[in-house]
Amino acid sequence: MPAHDAEFNKAKERLNTLSEAPGNDIKLKIYGLFKQATEGKCNKPKPGMMDLVGKAKWQAWNGLGDISQDDAQKKYIDLVNELIAADSPEPTSTTDSKFKTILVNKENKIYKITLNRPKKMNALNHLMYEEIMQALDEAGKDNSVLTVITGTGNYYCSGNDLENFTSTGGADIPAMAKQAREILYRFVGSFIRFPKPLIALINGPAVGISVTTLGLFDVVYCTDRATFHTPFSSLGQSPEGCSSYIFPQLMGSAKASEVLLFNKKLTAQEALDRNLVTEIFPDASFEKETMARVTKYAQLPPQSLQKSKNLMRQMQKDKLDKVNSEECDLLVERWQSDECMNAIMNFFKRKESKL
Amino acid sequence: MPAHDAEFNKAKERLNTLSEAPGNDIKLKIYGLFKQATEGKCNKPKPGMMDLVGKAKWQAWNGLGDISQDDAQKKYIDLVNELIAADSPEPTSTTDSKFKTILVNKENKIYKITLNRPKKMNALNHLMYEEIMQALDEAGKDNSVLTVITGTGNYYCSGNDLENFTSTGGADIPAMAKQAREILYRFVGSFIRFPKPLIALINGPAVGISVTTLGLFDVVYCTDRATFHTPFSSLGQSPEGCSSYIFPQLMGSAKASEVLLFNKKLTAQEALDRNLVTEIFPDASFEKETMARVTKYAQLPPQSLQKSKNLMRQMQKDKLDKVNSEECDLLVERWQSDECMNAIMNFFKRKESKL
Amino acid sequence: MPAHDAEFNKAKERLNTLSEAPGNDIKLKIYGLFKQATEGKCNKPKPGMMDLVGKAKWQAWNGLGDISQDDAQKKYIDLVNELIAADSPEPTSTTDSKFKTILVNKENKIYKITLNRPKKMNALNHLMYEEIMQALDEAGKDNSVLTVITGTGNYYCSGNDLENFTSTGGADIPAMAKQAREILYRFVGSFIRFPKPLIALINGPAVGISVTTLGLFDVVYCTDRATFHTPFSSLGQSPEGCSSYIFPQLMGSAKASEVLLFNKKLTAQEALDRNLVTEIFPDASFEKETMARVTKYAQLPPQSLQKSKNLMRQMQKDKLDKVNSEECDLLVERWQSDECMNAIMNFFKRKESKL
Repeated sequence: MPAHDAEFNKAKERLNTLSEAPGNDIKLKIYGLFKQATEGKCNKPKPGMMDLVGKAKWQAWNGLGDISQDDAQKKYIDLVNELIAADSPEPTSTTDSKFKTILVNKENKIYKITLNRPKKMNALNHLMYEEIMQALDEAGKDNSVLTVITGTGNYYCSGNDLENFTSTGGADIPAMAKQAREILYRFVGSFIRFPKPLIALINGPAVGISVTTLGLFDVVYCTDRATFHTPFSSLGQSPEGCSSYIFPQLMGSAKASEVLLFNKKLTAQEALDRNLVTEIFPDASFEKETMARVTKYAQLPPQSLQKSKNLMRQMQKDKLDKVNSEECDLLVERWQSDECMNAIMNFFKRKESKL
Repeated sequence: MPAHDAEFNKAKERLNTLSEAPGNDIKLKIYGLFKQATEGKCNKPKPGMMDLVGKAKWQAWNGLGDISQDDAQKKYIDLVNELIAADSPEPTSTTDSKFKTILVNKENKIYKITLNRPKKMNALNHLMYEEIMQALDEAGKDNSVLTVITGTGNYYCSGNDLENFTSTGGADIPAMAKQAREILYRFVGSFIRFPKPLIALINGPAVGISVTTLGLFDVVYCTDRATFHTPFSSLGQSPEGCSSYIFPQLMGSAKASEVLLFNKKLTAQEALDRNLVTEIFPDASFEKETMARVTKYAQLPPQSLQKSKNLMRQMQKDKLDKVNSEECDLLVERWQSDECMNAIMNFFKRKESKL
Repeated sequence: MPAHDAEFNKAKERLNTLSEAPGNDIKLKIYGLFKQATEGKCNKPKPGMMDLVGKAKWQAWNGLGDISQDDAQKKYIDLVNELIAADSPEPTSTTDSKFKTILVNKENKIYKITLNRPKKMNALNHLMYEEIMQALDEAGKDNSVLTVITGTGNYYCSGNDLENFTSTGGADIPAMAKQAREILYRFVGSFIRFPKPLIALINGPAVGISVTTLGLFDVVYCTDRATFHTPFSSLGQSPEGCSSYIFPQLMGSAKASEVLLFNKKLTAQEALDRNLVTEIFPDASFEKETMARVTKYAQLPPQSLQKSKNLMRQMQKDKLDKVNSEECDLLVERWQSDECMNAIMNFFKRKESKL
């Protein structure tokens, strides 16, 4: 009769408290020791070659040879203790305060980016573009399973901050346009190449580039309060975020043109019908319901998720890069056009004295 | 007055009993003889060059020259008798019993394949993969107009039979993965290249590869009891059947990822909304209604159907072959991964004693 | 105190009556004179380099140097008078009577083409194909912002006029097929390459090529009376208008095949669900509501519309040209096939005496 029964039973229970299941090798070791401790030397015939699981287990048990049940209990207890000691549970939540325009929170294998300029309805200024790119880069490399982007306050994002066009700096228009192109091209590229599942939680109205990049997400959940608006042509501009290519694929040209050329603002339901959105949730329970989903998804096998996502993306990647570049080229031309200047002047004219 | 009136009238009626309409040449011959027999020598002016039909008929009549109405009746009667004699009507139904896992039935120009392992919910084992390929090959070459695939019992198909992973044979894992890849690649390829209209009648739940290959069918009718489930990532695996490419085209990435990455099980209505399904039918009348449709379709001009289908397919064919190959490559890697082994071990663990 | 107050105020008001806003240069001139006239010599500091709008305005004002408020008023009044004089409002409507099968109307920056063979339900004969191409060519080059196509009477268009197959001319079938191919290829090409937004107002049933070309429009509005029918295979023919490629993209293969292979006639709602149509309007208010939309769209910045449209189109252009050519090749083969001849003979047989 083995000597460590109480401790053995306790070890068995502690095994269930591990924050993460051990790898296959360890599992088999535990299995073998458990069988040896409770049943003694392996007395089963070797399973057939193709019974992969059965064979692996049999080898783990049989490999212990003649060691006593007592010794097996002892080794089992030691192994469990080691695992428990090595099991430094993730801090329940980490918030990274190195960013100024976004919040980053890492929890439950989820890398969560929250757009955080609520007074500007989360409009994207240059710093915010850079910080989102930096966060995506980090999220792609760390041990999180998936990445979420959402917004603070009532808006998801009100698009490009017009201050980008009129404030700070000392360059002329062509130089400014060239600089903006470079940021935009890198920004959209960081979505095209993001290696893990990317989920948007659209907590309110979305405008401009925060809408056009949605085609590059893997899942888009939105509140029933969300709207989607891309008023490019009324500003003398043109679509970006690969939307000129992806939107017609999602909803056909006839519906995509209404959105991208003729400034139609979509309701949540219209965005769902047009395949821009995966599912709509009631505003009151939006955050709770969507985070429950996302938390469940983050428990799935990470490699399987990541490689399947890239399989789905790779057939389009070269095309998307090309589209991104051509969209940026057209915008550079548009930003310097009379139509665009007119539209911006009209925008400011409304605020100022009339002629 | 012609001498064979009674026989002539009878011949006219027998003409309607032919199981299939004769070709144009015969039709014109019949037309000419009929006119000559009833109106005598052709007395109409030759139609204009571009009145193709009129001209062909005129030539058939006029070409009979001066033969008497009596002779024309006689020739008409003889021709009809010949046609009737040569008209060996198709057997009403042929069932091919050389297959063990499927039923094959040929009737009304329809080649019908029924998945027939009801106790296994029509799960696909290696033999079934091979037999379906063999049947598709045969269906593509015989004189049927279109091909139907459906299932016996309550399920359409429960996907890949897990016995393929764990039973029979004597190879190691890499060799087994290589063999499975080869079967899968050929299997999906036989759908990509199938030359005639291919119609799925989804009589119940569909799982895994029986769902992912649906994008390669031309029409998909389903019962309102049908569901569509592709739980790849929870098994540490990845999508096949060209679904990683076709599903995003059908429903957009945001909805496709939910299905292919996050294991969402679709209802019949959701599958219809996502363009995976053509139309839903009430379960009680499913077989009757869909076979009526299919029987009607099988009466359409076969060459027109076949060539139009290939026109629609050919722009995608190279891409689909490439996708098929890349999906298979990833699966080979997945099958040998820790994640996949874990998932299979967990599957069996649930059935066995706990650690 | 300036001397021309009354006249100055009147000029200010007349400025608002201009049918079109002046260009940026003029606007800045007006702005500078207005400030000089009402506030005197520029007394504001020069804005920062990046405040583009503010800087342009400042330069316009500051550039006037020391001229008196009185002189500024005078120059302002003269400038406005010049603008008013040069403002020759567009004639409210121009109708071009050089066409026989279509009506062309140019108004409010809209080039409107109305199919006008109501007795033939606007079926397309050879002349109509040529006239539509000529009108599209003209519309692409003139100063209109967008182009609309609609139909006279109860039908939008009943498709290819069968008289094209059987009437006039003196060629044999292969030559006729070759000629028809050439017209069809150019016709579809003129839609593929049309450089401005193209809007279809589907005022009633649409058949054949008037349906298949809809995938090449940017917006498709239809009345609730509209239906969409492409009965190719029942006529032994095959799809054109790039529909073999575009329709599967719009609605998935399973729904596209039902339409293109199996002759399903779509209701307005079905066409909307399948992304062939942008929006449905009640028949009673169809023309009024859709023209109001189109008129509003025609006020948007033309270059922005045109370049954004081409951005959306260009990624597909080579593919579409290739598809157009392959569809035409197959049709040439089909027109000369037994199946097609049979179908046409059956069509006429129904009208004539039975065999």
